[in-house]
Amino acid sequence: MAFESKIKTIEWVNNISRMIDQRILPYEFKTVDIKTANEMYTAIKDMIVRGAPAIGIAGVHGVALGAIELAKIVQDKTTFLNELKKIAEYLKSSRPTAVNLMWGVDKQIQLANSISGSINDIVDALKENSIKLENEDIEINKKMGDYGAQVVPKGATILTHCNAGALATVGYGTALGVIRSAYAKDPTIKVFADETRPRQQGARLTTWELTQDGIPTTLITDGMCSYFMSKGMIDMVVVGADRIAANGDTANKIGTYTVAIAAKYHNVPFYIAAPLSTIDISIKSGKEIPIEERSHDEVTHINGDRICAKDVNIINPGFDVTPHELITGIITEKGILKPDFTTSIINAFKDN
Amino acid sequence: MAFESKIKTIEWVNNISRMIDQRILPYEFKTVDIKTANEMYTAIKDMIVRGAPAIGIAGVHGVALGAIELAKIVQDKTTFLNELKKIAEYLKSSRPTAVNLMWGVDKQIQLANSISGSINDIVDALKENSIKLENEDIEINKKMGDYGAQVVPKGATILTHCNAGALATVGYGTALGVIRSAYAKDPTIKVFADETRPRQQGARLTTWELTQDGIPTTLITDGMCSYFMSKGMIDMVVVGADRIAANGDTANKIGTYTVAIAAKYHNVPFYIAAPLSTIDISIKSGKEIPIEERSHDEVTHINGDRICAKDVNIINPGFDVTPHELITGIITEKGILKPDFTTSIINAFKDN
Repeated sequence: MAFESKIKTIEWVNNISRMIDQRILPYEFKTVDIKTANEMYTAIKDMIVRGAPAIGIAGVHGVALGAIELAKIVQDKTTFLNELKKIAEYLKSSRPTAVNLMWGVDKQIQLANSISGSINDIVDALKENSIKLENEDIEINKKMGDYGAQVVPKGATILTHCNAGALATVGYGTALGVIRSAYAKDPTIKVFADETRPRQQGARLTTWELTQDGIPTTLITDGMCSYFMSKGMIDMVVVGADRIAANGDTANKIGTYTVAIAAKYHNVPFYIAAPLSTIDISIKSGKEIPIEERSHDEVTHINGDRICAKDVNIINPGFDVTPHELITGIITEKGILKPDFTTSIINAFKDN
Repeated sequence: MAFESKIKTIEWVNNISRMIDQRILPYEFKTVDIKTANEMYTAIKDMIVRGAPAIGIAGVHGVALGAIELAKIVQDKTTFLNELKKIAEYLKSSRPTAVNLMWGVDKQIQLANSISGSINDIVDALKENSIKLENEDIEINKKMGDYGAQVVPKGATILTHCNAGALATVGYGTALGVIRSAYAKDPTIKVFADETRPRQQGARLTTWELTQDGIPTTLITDGMCSYFMSKGMIDMVVVGADRIAANGDTANKIGTYTVAIAAKYHNVPFYIAAPLSTIDISIKSGKEIPIEERSHDEVTHINGDRICAKDVNIINPGFDVTPHELITGIITEKGILKPDFTTSIINAFKDN
């Protein structure tokens, strides 16, 4: 049973990519129209759009936008495809950790290369594919939600970290999709949302989108999870993923790994919710996942105000890797993968 | 070898209690003069002064201030002592978790009751004791620092949570006292300071006081500790305490317990630094320590700005309890207590 969410995070409309500006939520709701591949690079880098699956679609749209631009100035098909490949590589460099970006961009490039017709045929195909992959994203999330809802205990309180919601996807969400589907079945479930410093996606985005949908949500600071687990107030954890290695090791927003260790210590089930497009079977373990180092201002400033002494050093890794041994299951559109993940992941791709 | 710190957090000067206003650090450095017991109650409750040992001295000063006020209006010694007892109870109710407050207030009341002379003799004794206990606090911290420095590895990076520094004591600090003593011996050591949401004492106070003293400090967000531990970038953890039970269970700022679990998972030594006055041998375990529930605004707002959606629920426990099995040692002025803590704590008090 799927819950209906009104949030549409990224949408292909009349040759532009329209997205919710997530930098200004929850203070202001505004959409931004992205019209060029260059603008898309900046939109991803500056996190107007964020969340692995949403970035995947942003990559898809970015290639389509680049193709529309190129078609106006390039007549030769080989040149067109070569130039489009360069745009693709540029788009991929906007954020290194989320594999969905690579997946989305590559999907479009493969499609472009497979079209036997004219440049215009390629452009049309990339535009159509933008809408098709958008719709698929929502369908995949609803499937994941249905699978995930099966492991949510009656009346459970679910902890989540960062925002793996409608705002991290085209709509519905991965981790929050599981919560939406569970809530549709059982309106007594509740959510605890980690603030998720430094960028506070939990405080800003998760509380916004869950309260928009009327799902009871308690905001906690990142250090509090163990306290509530020790009091028996958290029944399970569900988070999203930015990249999953072939052995199940999962890169997600910084702080996820700390929550996973706390969950293990308290025997609280810890689930990842992510589509198969987030699994990078080309890498054996989490050690191979590049961790993005982000701006120091994200740590030293909040809403433009400095929160610390001036002469302090900063290291700001955007992600951490939760080792597979801390993960109870990976909720995908093909069902819930269980340990040993090396085997269950291979099997999920075989069925594909 | 003791490092000299210039910070004097709370000081008895000419019948007033002068304290650094910790609410406005690191933006502004200002002292506040507290002239009555009522003002002291508010200063503790609003956290102009905070940190268990500093609150202990604030309690000491508060009783002395109350005695000065009472002596102006009460002539009968029995009435005076009864009224002073009421002031003492009122002061104790300002913050429930830190046992040092009870310790400091009770020290003064015991002294008052033991004076055979006049009301003026009592007032004089309480004033003298205010200065004596201040000096003792610094001496105790320096002893703790020397003991603690012995277990800091050469060139270590030490993680701390909240502020157990000069600003949490009269001067020098408990956890940061250990760091100061270690730094005096070995200037290659470094500090990682947890931000410590919700009130950000790590970001605001610890980075301020350590950079004032020139000790290299890196600010991290609360969720990051496990990431840096997994990279081998943290060699030990030292934190303060608000109350320690007879079995070693330790109440400290919310988030400490999460750090302790992460340290255990990575085999990183986890130390508490606290004077014996923080140990409450009247309670068997951490289950008996009352946990202060603080204002919701501390979670929903930073520097006056809302950081989340409006309809979100909040629970804001000020402290959590780290169970004794996660603690490597408790650094006190009598040496480093090791497990089994039930025995080592009893022995430390026997020597006293």
